[in-house]
Amino acid sequence: MSLTDSAAVDVARSASLASRRLAILPNAARNEALTALHHALDTNREIILAANAKDLEIATRAAESGSLNHSVLKRLDLSRPGKYDDMLDGILSVRDLDDPIGKVSLRTLLDDGLTLERISCPIGVLLIIFEARPEVIANIAALAIKSGNAAILKGGKESMESFAAIAKVVSEAIASSQVPVSSIQLVKTRDAVSSLLAQDSLIDLVIPRGSNELVRFVKDNTKIPVLGHADGLCSAYIHADADIDTAVKVIVDSKTDYPAACNSLECLLVHEDTLDSVFPAVATALLDKGVSLRCDAASRSALAKTLPAEKVAQIQLATETDYNTEFLDLVLAVKTIPSSGSRTSAVEAAIAHINAHSSKHTDLILTQSQEAANMFTSGIDSAGVFWNASTRFADGMRFGFGTEVGISTNKIHSRGPVGLEGLTIYKYLIRGNGHGAADYHDGVGGRKYLHTKLPTGQ
Amino acid sequence: MSLTDSAAVDVARSASLASRRLAILPNAARNEALTALHHALDTNREIILAANAKDLEIATRAAESGSLNHSVLKRLDLSRPGKYDDMLDGILSVRDLDDPIGKVSLRTLLDDGLTLERISCPIGVLLIIFEARPEVIANIAALAIKSGNAAILKGGKESMESFAAIAKVVSEAIASSQVPVSSIQLVKTRDAVSSLLAQDSLIDLVIPRGSNELVRFVKDNTKIPVLGHADGLCSAYIHADADIDTAVKVIVDSKTDYPAACNSLECLLVHEDTLDSVFPAVATALLDKGVSLRCDAASRSALAKTLPAEKVAQIQLATETDYNTEFLDLVLAVKTIPSSGSRTSAVEAAIAHINAHSSKHTDLILTQSQEAANMFTSGIDSAGVFWNASTRFADGMRFGFGTEVGISTNKIHSRGPVGLEGLTIYKYLIRGNGHGAADYHDGVGGRKYLHTKLPTGQ
Repeated sequence: MSLTDSAAVDVARSASLASRRLAILPNAARNEALTALHHALDTNREIILAANAKDLEIATRAAESGSLNHSVLKRLDLSRPGKYDDMLDGILSVRDLDDPIGKVSLRTLLDDGLTLERISCPIGVLLIIFEARPEVIANIAALAIKSGNAAILKGGKESMESFAAIAKVVSEAIASSQVPVSSIQLVKTRDAVSSLLAQDSLIDLVIPRGSNELVRFVKDNTKIPVLGHADGLCSAYIHADADIDTAVKVIVDSKTDYPAACNSLECLLVHEDTLDSVFPAVATALLDKGVSLRCDAASRSALAKTLPAEKVAQIQLATETDYNTEFLDLVLAVKTIPSSGSRTSAVEAAIAHINAHSSKHTDLILTQSQEAANMFTSGIDSAGVFWNASTRFADGMRFGFGTEVGISTNKIHSRGPVGLEGLTIYKYLIRGNGHGAADYHDGVGGRKYLHTKLPTGQ
Repeated sequence: MSLTDSAAVDVARSASLASRRLAILPNAARNEALTALHHALDTNREIILAANAKDLEIATRAAESGSLNHSVLKRLDLSRPGKYDDMLDGILSVRDLDDPIGKVSLRTLLDDGLTLERISCPIGVLLIIFEARPEVIANIAALAIKSGNAAILKGGKESMESFAAIAKVVSEAIASSQVPVSSIQLVKTRDAVSSLLAQDSLIDLVIPRGSNELVRFVKDNTKIPVLGHADGLCSAYIHADADIDTAVKVIVDSKTDYPAACNSLECLLVHEDTLDSVFPAVATALLDKGVSLRCDAASRSALAKTLPAEKVAQIQLATETDYNTEFLDLVLAVKTIPSSGSRTSAVEAAIAHINAHSSKHTDLILTQSQEAANMFTSGIDSAGVFWNASTRFADGMRFGFGTEVGISTNKIHSRGPVGLEGLTIYKYLIRGNGHGAADYHDGVGGRKYLHTKLPTGQ
């Protein structure tokens, strides 16, 4: 589908209309559509993998000529062992989650026969823009249908053939169900993005899944709320009383488990008192894993005392830029937090550095002190605040959400790993019996509100 | 304070720093600041009312010369009976609400010694832009402090003197408490607005309180999320089986209780089958209250059969524009929903009209049928969906929220009347014991996530 502005309006309007019909479908009807989707993707596996092979062929040539990153190639490949089955399983696990719609989170008796309820409902129309990963289509389609939202999906050029093949299968599967066909629409061409981003009266939420550049482009070019994160600049702070084994284990995992992930560690703050104890052990473990350290003067001097000279020679001095950089690689910036003043003032200094430099994704403290941990977790302005556990746990699957739409560094609506719940909002439902507000005006109406809290039944 | 861009950065930055210190203050400390605020505003009543009198004098002259709306004059007047005391009481009632911060809404045991919690926390920095009502300062300051958010308040020129006097009292009161002084900052001059709206990296949420024009200006001129509503175009649908007394009572209240309010009725949809029964009774009651009706041909003809000719002569024929107009006055647009097809298809037609024309504020169905009500309340895409009760109940006080920041027609974060809860978000807190994610990778780490739901203790 090639999109002009008017075509984008048509896509968005049909999605909006579909979303209203989808909003009144019961959970069973939404689940049936997911079963049909699963079956269709299973049945058409060979066709889809053949299309994916074409994408891979083009991408491999591009990677060989240096015009495409090798990691894109890996993300594009649906034929890797287990990947296709994981995609299929994901649909069923979303299907089997509790219905996120119709949940009552507040119920108040306003007066006899006048009841207020706050009930979860779909947001409306989602626009999902992604790059290489073709399995995102199945994943997002499942989450959107389960949560009663219509979704417009826009794929990247690298996955064009896979996308077209999956799109055809998805559309046919949905057509066989009660879910309106326009609930899931797949658009391809490049110029579609700006036209779609302009539909702020019809599209309720944009979710970009891809590079930092993609997310920034989307945020800079739309008035529609954007859910996601551009950067994942995660920091760890080793407090004066940190346990050495815990620190080594957690820091090494945070930095080296998967350096290209947004929840990997990029900056390490070390309390001055640990420079000759905990820090050298952590640094040695990191260097052994091939991590390049970019240290400030104090932390580098501390390592110079304990490490062999050839290792110290490899340690670069950090620049200010390093503390604002998401390396996404085996590189870590290190900064010393002075011990001057009380121990709590060191925690405050660490909090101040992190709040000024981090991307509000996930930050970590290593300490044995409940007080220091409490200060850190309430003072840090990030979606995830972790105590003695790896930043790599910041993930919807690991959190037990089943699957995730993405990780949000927004300050409103949804923060951190966003699952089904983040695709819902609520409405206020009042049931009355001919009640008017004039009857309650002080001194005029005479009636008083009861405002009795009722059980929500959940 | 006159604001250039760099001054706006200073205000926003100091608010951001204050917000982080405010975030770690316990409820008791925030409550003490509210007690101090209440005391200071009570003690300085005469000074503030004298300043308000100056604003009123200027505004009265402006109103007499026709350059200011008389309703602004009324909103500006703090000396109206009960108004100052209501403002003071409001601070104490916010103080006495449950602490909205630190509430645990999810607790999961990920593995032995590895716990995940979702905990409510402040959003950060709020920017509140308002026009005439000076009591908004006390109201918003109380809500912001209670919810642990810093707030920058920007008043309109009509309330300049009142604003300056209240600002001085508020600052002094807060300075006597543990709440950082920069938590509540009051800025006055006109040119400040665009500079502040540009601080999207430091300000987390904008709340405009005032005219539709103000809200639209704010929405069009910032990348910061905006909470509020430009229009309140509320509709009611009289279904075929509506009870006549209920319909009369609810429609008259919705339209005439306070026509200038955003939750007043602006459009009435009538099922064709009620044109000779329920509708004439409703129309007569409305006409008796001085409401001008703008009817489509079918509904006007129906009235022509029952009403005296001189009344019918006063009824205008509706234009398409009338169905998109928030009259904020004793004017009501009326449209007939044809009875062709089934009764549910009429409900669908009403839903389609409302979703296409309403402002997603509050919409109402009058029916005796549970099935029709369910269709309507799930199909209508608005913050409030009411059944047999007046749209005028859409209000934070009436909902039992204590007080409200405003009414939101957004599709994400907060919808409808927004109280303290709408000024909070959450963060994910993980407590571990040296846990790394690598230990859990399938087939490699070997450990499995438990994902055991734990009670949240609430």
